[in-house]
Amino acid sequence: MTRTVPRIGLMLGDPSGIGPELAARLIADPRNWEGSTPLLIGDRRVLDRGFEHAKIAKVNILEVLNAAEANGSGVFLLNRRGTDAELPPIGRVTPESGRMTLDDLLFSMDLIRKGLLDGFVFAPLNKQALMVAGMKAHSELELLKTEFPDNTGLEEINILDGAWALRVTSHIPLKDVVANLSVEKVLASLRFLAAAMGANGQKTTRIAVAALNPHGGENGLCGTEELEIIAPAIRMANKEGIDAAGPFPADTVFLKVRSGEYQGVLNMYHDQGQIATKLIGLSRGVTYHAGFLVPIATPAHGTAFDIVGTGRADLGPTQAAYEVTARIARENLGKKK
Amino acid sequence: MTRTVPRIGLMLGDPSGIGPELAARLIADPRNWEGSTPLLIGDRRVLDRGFEHAKIAKVNILEVLNAAEANGSGVFLLNRRGTDAELPPIGRVTPESGRMTLDDLLFSMDLIRKGLLDGFVFAPLNKQALMVAGMKAHSELELLKTEFPDNTGLEEINILDGAWALRVTSHIPLKDVVANLSVEKVLASLRFLAAAMGANGQKTTRIAVAALNPHGGENGLCGTEELEIIAPAIRMANKEGIDAAGPFPADTVFLKVRSGEYQGVLNMYHDQGQIATKLIGLSRGVTYHAGFLVPIATPAHGTAFDIVGTGRADLGPTQAAYEVTARIARENLGKKK
Repeated sequence: MTRTVPRIGLMLGDPSGIGPELAARLIADPRNWEGSTPLLIGDRRVLDRGFEHAKIAKVNILEVLNAAEANGSGVFLLNRRGTDAELPPIGRVTPESGRMTLDDLLFSMDLIRKGLLDGFVFAPLNKQALMVAGMKAHSELELLKTEFPDNTGLEEINILDGAWALRVTSHIPLKDVVANLSVEKVLASLRFLAAAMGANGQKTTRIAVAALNPHGGENGLCGTEELEIIAPAIRMANKEGIDAAGPFPADTVFLKVRSGEYQGVLNMYHDQGQIATKLIGLSRGVTYHAGFLVPIATPAHGTAFDIVGTGRADLGPTQAAYEVTARIARENLGKKK
Repeated sequence: MTRTVPRIGLMLGDPSGIGPELAARLIADPRNWEGSTPLLIGDRRVLDRGFEHAKIAKVNILEVLNAAEANGSGVFLLNRRGTDAELPPIGRVTPESGRMTLDDLLFSMDLIRKGLLDGFVFAPLNKQALMVAGMKAHSELELLKTEFPDNTGLEEINILDGAWALRVTSHIPLKDVVANLSVEKVLASLRFLAAAMGANGQKTTRIAVAALNPHGGENGLCGTEELEIIAPAIRMANKEGIDAAGPFPADTVFLKVRSGEYQGVLNMYHDQGQIATKLIGLSRGVTYHAGFLVPIATPAHGTAFDIVGTGRADLGPTQAAYEVTARIARENLGKKK
């Protein structure tokens, strides 16, 4: 059966963080999910605590036993009631919170594999808690890649204020960056980013490509990777119809994106992008994982243990994560028809 | 004769850019230079054109034949009248503008060598024009180092909104950064930055040191330079009484400075600092050259050929460059007494 309204899994995230209250606030306002069917994934009691922390009245949520029952307009819950006598405390890492989160996460992956979700959003996880609970992967992305061996994912995409940022290399020592760059890798990243922006239905997907060396290498005087790797990759991408330009000096490339001249930016290494985005306010952004069976996104911020229940958690990033996931899921359903 | 009021050389900069109008505006308001003796260095006609572009009435400026005559409270001019029949046009690079600028610059260096200036500020230069005119150096800093062989300068210091930033390595390819880092170099940079901030009379000179690798190297999991180079250098600096901390992940270190927790930041490579400062607005900042006979500073922005005479040039960076130069010059005179 082909769904016409996409079913979006919304996992509550770490039960001790701000995830449950963000999920509660998100679903409490139908404008946040209209045109999709949200299926909450987590422990009912954790969700209830989220409503308490959010200080909002509970809304009508239909518990289902199977994801397939969540259809149409309404909010559903797959209640993953734990066997623990008590819920883990808020505001800190415990083995229980890690176990619950990892369990919900792997369960959600399974739903995706079975074709029961059209998109997946998870409220913030706590990596330390997940590792205490036995997660071997070093990041959420690494876990996703392990769980979906046939993925075509590269690195995570950071979406901030409508700008999409990707990096060619990520969690490697700076000294290894150059050895990990190649025309093929830069080209693959350009294809990946352009495809993700296209899947989001964006008409304009101009990508600014960052240079590697100071002042963009000064035409070979200060590094040769621009001439030998980055520029050729951009030319090849252009031939394929990808709207990319550069390489631009890394210290001005983000200004071009911020001005709206470009909607995407491809960085060569981790901090090149992160310095800019964290300064602008990465925590307001979305981490988007493309290249898996369905679109997967999460707010870029963490569990914020220090502000659980204070009402200070910003709903914006979770709204944005849900919005982009639902939009791409709808586009995908449209293509299947 | 020991001067009690510091004599600050103020060079008009490239005659075709916004430098002359900035210099005119700076000296027109005595609050910008009180407690110092400004000695303008340049062509009288260029200065006159600067007043025209600035659309302000000319102020009383005393022409002197020798720098030694510029003393006390007032504005002086060393008129470097060129032999060219006409002034170079505004808004573009010409051999004449480059020749005039390079000539004034080298003349000013000579005044410094002769002990006739206590500080030196130059309005924006145009590197291309200087190179057309025969400058061999690749940067203003390189020229200064050539002109003052006994300098103790390292890299330029960027001052922005009261925060002082220095980098250990600068205009080298990214692949060479690691080979150019050492405990000795990081320590020398910390000493240099702390001394410069101290010379400015700052009571609080807390320096945040940036890490090299993603996430600060994750305790050796993602790069070892933090453990082997940066942290030991910080410990040694601390033993010398330098208030430095870190290494902090490069993508959050500037947030600590922006919050006021730290007043200085030491970066490991060019773009690490430049991405952040350009995003915050480097053009509002000051480039400060420490380690020469006298303090030398310039606004961080360029000649802005496109806005000459439009009234859109921001005086702020020139004011800040003059202010820091005059303050350090006064501190230096105080120490000589």
